[in-house]
Amino acid sequence: MSSISFPGDYTAEDIAKSAKTAFQASQLISSAERAKALHEIRRELEATKDDIMVANKKDLEAAQIEVEAGRMSSSLFKRLDLGKGEKWDSMLQGVTDVANLPDPTGIVTYASELDDSLELYRVSCPIGLLLVIFEARPEVVINIAALAIKSGNAAILKGGKESNETTRLLSKVIQTALSRTSISSTYIQTIQTRAEVSALLELDQYIDLVIPRGSNSLVRNIQNNTRIPVMGHADGLCSVYLDESADIGKAMRVVLDSKTDYPAACNAAETLIVHENILSTVWPAVAKALLAAEVNLLCDTPTLTALSALSPVPTNFTTHVQPSTPDAYTTEHLSLTLSVLAIPSVADAIRFINAHSSHHTDCIVTEDPAAASAFCRGVDSAGTFVNASTRFADGFRYGFGTEVGISTGRIHARGPVGLEGLVTYKYMLRSKGENGHIVGEFGAGEGKKQFKHTRLSAETVPFLTE
Amino acid sequence: MSSISFPGDYTAEDIAKSAKTAFQASQLISSAERAKALHEIRRELEATKDDIMVANKKDLEAAQIEVEAGRMSSSLFKRLDLGKGEKWDSMLQGVTDVANLPDPTGIVTYASELDDSLELYRVSCPIGLLLVIFEARPEVVINIAALAIKSGNAAILKGGKESNETTRLLSKVIQTALSRTSISSTYIQTIQTRAEVSALLELDQYIDLVIPRGSNSLVRNIQNNTRIPVMGHADGLCSVYLDESADIGKAMRVVLDSKTDYPAACNAAETLIVHENILSTVWPAVAKALLAAEVNLLCDTPTLTALSALSPVPTNFTTHVQPSTPDAYTTEHLSLTLSVLAIPSVADAIRFINAHSSHHTDCIVTEDPAAASAFCRGVDSAGTFVNASTRFADGFRYGFGTEVGISTGRIHARGPVGLEGLVTYKYMLRSKGENGHIVGEFGAGEGKKQFKHTRLSAETVPFLTE
Repeated sequence: MSSISFPGDYTAEDIAKSAKTAFQASQLISSAERAKALHEIRRELEATKDDIMVANKKDLEAAQIEVEAGRMSSSLFKRLDLGKGEKWDSMLQGVTDVANLPDPTGIVTYASELDDSLELYRVSCPIGLLLVIFEARPEVVINIAALAIKSGNAAILKGGKESNETTRLLSKVIQTALSRTSISSTYIQTIQTRAEVSALLELDQYIDLVIPRGSNSLVRNIQNNTRIPVMGHADGLCSVYLDESADIGKAMRVVLDSKTDYPAACNAAETLIVHENILSTVWPAVAKALLAAEVNLLCDTPTLTALSALSPVPTNFTTHVQPSTPDAYTTEHLSLTLSVLAIPSVADAIRFINAHSSHHTDCIVTEDPAAASAFCRGVDSAGTFVNASTRFADGFRYGFGTEVGISTGRIHARGPVGLEGLVTYKYMLRSKGENGHIVGEFGAGEGKKQFKHTRLSAETVPFLTE
Repeated sequence: MSSISFPGDYTAEDIAKSAKTAFQASQLISSAERAKALHEIRRELEATKDDIMVANKKDLEAAQIEVEAGRMSSSLFKRLDLGKGEKWDSMLQGVTDVANLPDPTGIVTYASELDDSLELYRVSCPIGLLLVIFEARPEVVINIAALAIKSGNAAILKGGKESNETTRLLSKVIQTALSRTSISSTYIQTIQTRAEVSALLELDQYIDLVIPRGSNSLVRNIQNNTRIPVMGHADGLCSVYLDESADIGKAMRVVLDSKTDYPAACNAAETLIVHENILSTVWPAVAKALLAAEVNLLCDTPTLTALSALSPVPTNFTTHVQPSTPDAYTTEHLSLTLSVLAIPSVADAIRFINAHSSHHTDCIVTEDPAAASAFCRGVDSAGTFVNASTRFADGFRYGFGTEVGISTGRIHARGPVGLEGLVTYKYMLRSKGENGHIVGEFGAGEGKKQFKHTRLSAETVPFLTE
């Protein structure tokens, strides 16, 4: 048990225990009441907008000093501003959108009649208590709270310290809104310091899942310091492979979009792999298009040599085309830089990607069905794409309605994670038999029963009532 | 990277890297070839039976000395013996049974048309490289190898040191069998020491999941020492709650079976919770039946007082009925001992179970549908049962054909885990469009495309070939 004491004399254990108790008490609360809680949060946000903007201004003023002192980037500063553009309205709309999504809990995914009058149901249910650690953007507090409430999970949230004034008030809004429902106000709590996070990471008896959203080092640091399962969101080192049979037009469009649509995103391409038989055909056309888009190319010897014949020579050739070093192929550039290499076969492309990519999303451009199949089966990544930009790897584009994040692990949830990444399942077994059901009646001996194992079709558990 | 050196000059990294490479190379191998590998293992086991029995005898002789010196229990000794009863034949049959199960990979669980000619498939696939740590029984090497190969996962196996001679030979059998297939012989490897386990737990770049089967302390120790996700199999602290409306016959049968069918199992009941309104009706009948089965009862004051009126007094009353201490309700007895308490309502039973049980399996005996529904929704356990013995919580009884184990976690797999607990999924996206598909064409502006998100019905991915 942690003995770190927190402001107001409550401990990490107080926070975790009260949140877990709120979770357990909430299991009999209806789906409609959870949706009502989200509408109440929106209503309370609208009622408190002026105060929230004042708090946000305090965060921005403190941040401005940091920016001027060179201790904070201007991009981080911009992310703090809740009044910028449509951010406030988007946040409100997001709450309503999540409220209107289908309930991810209560869905039967396996049902079987084990014996006459003995029915087994595997049914989706909340995981329990989540600890979510995220970046500076203050609106994430509202996003994550909405996702947690919708999926029936309690949550403890820790945002970036730069937005503490804003998140403190957003947290109060959530608690006020919850107090108008039958959900306990300790169901969603926020914390402010790393010391609190450290203390909470010890409490695996209360916390069921940690979701860190941020850098690789944040995720690894948390994995190193807890027994609680971690669903991490880290690197994206995505690649596009141009197969021997690649269509030149598709190759140009897919590579350009994968690299330049939003270079700072984790689903942007960082590496281009070119089949050696198209070094003098497809590759020069793709390279010209990339250079026209001001992309810097880090090339291995064959791909570099192939460009020496480019005519006319692009004006930015000398500044934008460089020989690569081996570390180029394990670097997430997150900018207009692309590492390029040549390989002799699709099998080599698969091996190269499995050895170098971060298993996020990788694409093949090909007209050969056998190559497409081999690539999709052989590449060990969350997304394997054919003739489509790596940028499609996204919860909204996949049609999940919302996105909890993109999981770079492969346990529980992989790739873009929708609401169903926040549920687990439980088994409900009901005997309708006259005498109940006992195991001792089944077996190999004389007079013993055998299991039927007849699959039942059911979308919900018939004997549950709200 | 680990620098511990192993016998034969190979390192933990050599083992893990070669196993992961074998996994990646196996992705293009057909389901039929994986089944063939299992048949080859059975054939090689049959051909090598005499040598294996000689090795097993060596383990048994060494163990006999430990038993005589009081350093090993006789129950552990018995588990080492591969020649005992039908164990050998069961092991062989188990390999064939797993070979004949449906392939858990390649199954589409979500399919959507994102746009004309742009199809998304979520398809089940192996997790990767497993590290499985288990108890002394040597046949588990073969069981786990069969499950791993069937589900397309590579595995590193560590059994109890007491069975090292036997498992070394079983491991050789597996490698010989694999050498007659297109699966690499480094796909399944065994290790023998805890130092090797420690070194492997650092290698999260190669190992995707650790499965420890054993005590709570083993599971926690591993969770404390690795960043790799852990699917643990630990405690079972199961309870039966006799509701106010419980049928007396069902109560007697379900409690007896839950407690006495196999008291050492993790799904046996350890706690009995009695509604206070049936203390003088149902409870005495259940208590008499339990005492007749030689069950020791540790009772709180109300349940103890209620038994003072038992007539005639059971002969073993004074030896078998004792007042309970608070720790009785958090103890996994694993023997013919049952902790008993009274509560005033189903809501209190739910709260008590959520606070004290290990979230494994809990049962309500009731005739009241509302109580059954509240219990199944409110109890936060992997199994919530109505009028059925807790002993039904088992992969074979649930109809999974085989059991990887019973997961006490709630991430990825929960409760009895079949083959599908050893798979994850990946997303395959294919553009059949004339120009491929790029994200830049979608959006809010004029001339931009909107996503269709039309659900497709598909059981397998249409463009994959074996």
